[in-house]
Amino acid sequence: VSAAHRVARPLFQRPRFDPTLYLVTDHATCGARGLMATVAAALAGGVSMLQYRAKNIPVRQALAEAEELVSLARAHGVPMIVNDRLDIALAAEADGLHLGGSDLPPAVARRLLGEGKILGRSVTRSCDVAEIDPYVIDYVGLGPVFATATKPDHAPPLGFVRFGALRRGIPVPVVGIGGIDLARAPALIAAGADGAAVVSAICGAEDPERAARQLRETIEIARGGR
Amino acid sequence: VSAAHRVARPLFQRPRFDPTLYLVTDHATCGARGLMATVAAALAGGVSMLQYRAKNIPVRQALAEAEELVSLARAHGVPMIVNDRLDIALAAEADGLHLGGSDLPPAVARRLLGEGKILGRSVTRSCDVAEIDPYVIDYVGLGPVFATATKPDHAPPLGFVRFGALRRGIPVPVVGIGGIDLARAPALIAAGADGAAVVSAICGAEDPERAARQLRETIEIARGGR
Repeated sequence: VSAAHRVARPLFQRPRFDPTLYLVTDHATCGARGLMATVAAALAGGVSMLQYRAKNIPVRQALAEAEELVSLARAHGVPMIVNDRLDIALAAEADGLHLGGSDLPPAVARRLLGEGKILGRSVTRSCDVAEIDPYVIDYVGLGPVFATATKPDHAPPLGFVRFGALRRGIPVPVVGIGGIDLARAPALIAAGADGAAVVSAICGAEDPERAARQLRETIEIARGGR
Repeated sequence: VSAAHRVARPLFQRPRFDPTLYLVTDHATCGARGLMATVAAALAGGVSMLQYRAKNIPVRQALAEAEELVSLARAHGVPMIVNDRLDIALAAEADGLHLGGSDLPPAVARRLLGEGKILGRSVTRSCDVAEIDPYVIDYVGLGPVFATATKPDHAPPLGFVRFGALRRGIPVPVVGIGGIDLARAPALIAAGADGAAVVSAICGAEDPERAARQLRETIEIARGGR
């Protein structure tokens, strides 16, 4: 965590969270095992944050799934964050909201969420960095670090060097996202990430619990030096 | 307004509204004149409620349009209600939310909106009627009364006789929607509607202000006997 982050954080109370290993859900990648069983295994393995990403899911199904994931995550002491949809986040009483660059403006989302919720934002380019107000945003998902099949419309990959350069300008905790797996996690941490956000490396693993455990251990070891 | 409505309404304060002539927006139907110019003309002509319906509009555009419509409507003392999206309704500080049968559950939406906002719901079938809790829902849009090209996926049309039968079971004000125009408005009121909701009859008119004025006068005359 950078010095800029320590200085600029607001003083009022927000939820604490651990960005070490951030699981982002994807219905298709979970496959036949299903969303809930995959997330349950991943939580048992050591996921420290959870994001429910549901594109093109009917709103009542999304609400029911979000509510179930809040219960699941809460049993592990892990925050459950909803991607994009403030209405689902509020209705499911989730722990926070994650915004992309074309979603609701962060200041509007913060006003409606209140101070007690976690608000995250995706950053894909240097021009996004200037928009990260640490009084509004709690963490950033920076990427894609590498190309990924999970999000076909993603921005150009950053690579570790550019990731590190952008990360230094961001005054809140940063997780790297996009193509992160066990082999790449140590270099991601070395480039300045506070944690890793993954979809395929857990949801697409044969044994999601084991995959989460290995990722978490690897990230904690890599971060040991800082 | 039925006797059942007068008895069952909650006592706590909610915004007052006039359901006489309810304009529901549609970008395509407004055509080259554009959404804002059409709504401005319709408000000048006597629309008494406004609903912003934006399907497949990017969220930041939807928010900007909703905010502009709130200002426009407020200048005429008319409530601006957002279709479907609670997040847009909250972010734009709209006067209320209109829910379809597959949107957020009304009780959840009411909790998040607070008591100060108008909450409406679409009813298309007799089994929806039992779900109308007058402590949660402020008005109902009942229809489609007739087939309409504005909403290609609409439920089977009710016609006036079935509209009247369903309307009698609904303990809140009811506007009829679906194929309502100047010629059909008097029979809609005679069937028990408190007002008419229209898209094409105003947005698709050559002169939306004149169309709104004629509709309002016709509805007020038809309602004169009740």
